Amino acid sequence: MPDAVDLIRAKRDGGQLSAADIRWVIATYTAGAIADEQMAALLMAIYFRGLDPDELMAWTDAMISSGERLELGGLAAPTVDKHSTGGVGDKVSLILAPLVASCGAAVPQLSGRGLGHTGGTLDKLESIPGWRASLSNADIVRVLAATGCVICAAGDGLAPADRRLYALRDVTGTVESIPLIASSIMSKKIAEGTGSLVLDVKVGTGAFMPDLASARQLAQIMVELGNAHGVRTSALLTRMDTPLGRAVGNAVEVEESVASLHGRGPADLMEVTLALAAEMLRLAGLSADPAAALADGRALDRYRAMIAAQGGDPEARLPSARHAEIVTAQSGGWLQVLDARAVGVAAWRLGAGRARKEDPVSASAGIICLAKPGDAVAAGQPVVELRGDDPGKFGHAREALAGAIDIGPQPPEPAGLVLDRIG
Amino acid sequence: MPDAVDLIRAKRDGGQLSAADIRWVIATYTAGAIADEQMAALLMAIYFRGLDPDELMAWTDAMISSGERLELGGLAAPTVDKHSTGGVGDKVSLILAPLVASCGAAVPQLSGRGLGHTGGTLDKLESIPGWRASLSNADIVRVLAATGCVICAAGDGLAPADRRLYALRDVTGTVESIPLIASSIMSKKIAEGTGSLVLDVKVGTGAFMPDLASARQLAQIMVELGNAHGVRTSALLTRMDTPLGRAVGNAVEVEESVASLHGRGPADLMEVTLALAAEMLRLAGLSADPAAALADGRALDRYRAMIAAQGGDPEARLPSARHAEIVTAQSGGWLQVLDARAVGVAAWRLGAGRARKEDPVSASAGIICLAKPGDAVAAGQPVVELRGDDPGKFGHAREALAGAIDIGPQPPEPAGLVLDRIG
Repeated sequence: MPDAVDLIRAKRDGGQLSAADIRWVIATYTAGAIADEQMAALLMAIYFRGLDPDELMAWTDAMISSGERLELGGLAAPTVDKHSTGGVGDKVSLILAPLVASCGAAVPQLSGRGLGHTGGTLDKLESIPGWRASLSNADIVRVLAATGCVICAAGDGLAPADRRLYALRDVTGTVESIPLIASSIMSKKIAEGTGSLVLDVKVGTGAFMPDLASARQLAQIMVELGNAHGVRTSALLTRMDTPLGRAVGNAVEVEESVASLHGRGPADLMEVTLALAAEMLRLAGLSADPAAALADGRALDRYRAMIAAQGGDPEARLPSARHAEIVTAQSGGWLQVLDARAVGVAAWRLGAGRARKEDPVSASAGIICLAKPGDAVAAGQPVVELRGDDPGKFGHAREALAGAIDIGPQPPEPAGLVLDRIG
Repeated sequence: MPDAVDLIRAKRDGGQLSAADIRWVIATYTAGAIADEQMAALLMAIYFRGLDPDELMAWTDAMISSGERLELGGLAAPTVDKHSTGGVGDKVSLILAPLVASCGAAVPQLSGRGLGHTGGTLDKLESIPGWRASLSNADIVRVLAATGCVICAAGDGLAPADRRLYALRDVTGTVESIPLIASSIMSKKIAEGTGSLVLDVKVGTGAFMPDLASARQLAQIMVELGNAHGVRTSALLTRMDTPLGRAVGNAVEVEESVASLHGRGPADLMEVTLALAAEMLRLAGLSADPAAALADGRALDRYRAMIAAQGGDPEARLPSARHAEIVTAQSGGWLQVLDARAVGVAAWRLGAGRARKEDPVSASAGIICLAKPGDAVAAGQPVVELRGDDPGKFGHAREALAGAIDIGPQPPEPAGLVLDRIG
């Protein structure tokens, strides 16, 4: 039988772990028979030494094998999912899932909650009265069959090893490891049973991957892992230097998503959403036109049906904040930068996000970007609106925005949001 | 207040931790308020990133401050101690402490137990009936004042942070880090209150440091730490490719030590012992001749007084093993290699050492090297004698010796054991 210390030392010294060693370490850790401190040391050694393709495959397999796999093969429609590595104002899933469903696919969008400066899809939808994130496996299949899409929490049965490992990585400074990120994401997505998968790998100040090279590497690794497991997988690298759309928070992002499904979406948000929709439909082998599905209201109908199927009232009035403050332009010119991370941190401090996964989030807190990079602004013109229920939090939010707004004398170069496609 | 995850990430990314951060992390960990998994991740990050001189100083200070300091200033004689980084057959302390005491110094030799293939001084002395390793601080001072030397366990009050950290490093693959080794050794030796300290840094197959460069680096760091804390410190780098002397084990090493104090010590053991004695006396400012103290029996008298003062009977017959087996030379020639690590592992497997610090050790098990590198041997001549009480362990011990004995057609080049002096 392998020994945990021997495996830690082997990885530390740049050696390769065998598939049997990796199966043993994941299974034994999940069973509680390897101590957290030993796994923490191994994760830090992996942070420095990486995992080669064989190790990464074995690591991902072991995490999938730690739990159950969802069976979606009985659906009539081809299944296709999207995963985003996380950004600020990234409400794409709320629009994309019903949109792609209205084009003939089944979209099993198993999602997570927000942590730190990035929001979580489930947190956003929970601002809708009555809406439930937790569904049984049977309910997931039932909602999917009925409406073509479902957005819900990944159940405890999928890749439970990842849940334990992620919680450990979070407290041990080992989140930012490309193989560990890739295996965490892909083990859940493969266990979820989707036939195809499009990855939205964010690049920029508001993303986990700050530079294009590491984002590309992460995307390539995940695309290979997906395809090797029989999931048709591709990735778009998209820019995340400024919030996507204008709303950052929970209820405010749901409202912007509904407006987008009504055809009134901000240009940047719709550019990314339609690019991902086209990629999902391509992988699913469908030729429907998502722009038409948006224009004729089919996507909106799917959204309403999906929300209702999970107990939510799609017509309900959402919580709104009791207080608002405005941040104005200090000079005139063109807005060059409205930094995604700073806005994300500010929204978090207003209550829209959480520092620990047990913390509650405020449905109503958030930020509205009244101007976006490329817009002309006059001195004194409102740029950002802060919203929240607790007046004591606005000062901290304003501090987070220090240096986040840059105004220059020339319009910035316009730039597309989709940087590359992998796979 | 600092945050553990922020400190882990800072070190992981190559940043410098402030002295305040380090004080906080050591004190908070020792108080149980930083989790083992967070400290394990930090230790692995330190393994990869190291500690710079300021960080190492702060880390060592924080470990010293975690406990009490022994007060030896009331003794008439200058205090001087020796620390070995650990080797095979390294019974030097048993001869050196009474020898240097008989030359006018006070030698507070606070020691540890063996772990893995290296033996521990306390384990060896515990083969003497009645001898006690644990003394109160008052008893340590009393024995020192009466006999000029004491060899005993470092009490729980000295650098307790190191005790917790060492146990964690042992199970997380983070033992082999030069700054962590240096701060672990030096925090205990500085807290012990000795005025001078000579380090015996072993180099070779039987040592923690396999190569001269890393041994030299460790020695330099420790010498700087000692001098910066007011302890006159120097180091000898000594060769550890083959066991020191002929006996490897517990009772067998005590017997060889007593023979050495009678003037019948093996040449290699006496070369290292006398070099360390000269260095200790130089640091202590004493000019007595250790060779004379050996020859006229003063050193042996001190040894007997020290053993008796700790409850031991220096004349007692020591436990002897019930079984013995011989390993013979497979060809004739000159013995080139008798590998220290292999002999250490073989002795460990016979029962002389322990795998975990809770394990008991056998007083009688061990190995006698009947030939040493440089000796001429005939085919079939005995080279190694294995001793132990459990016949089932001899097979494993023989396996450990596979490839450990090399016989060649020419005598090997003679080489001195003291490679360098630092400080």
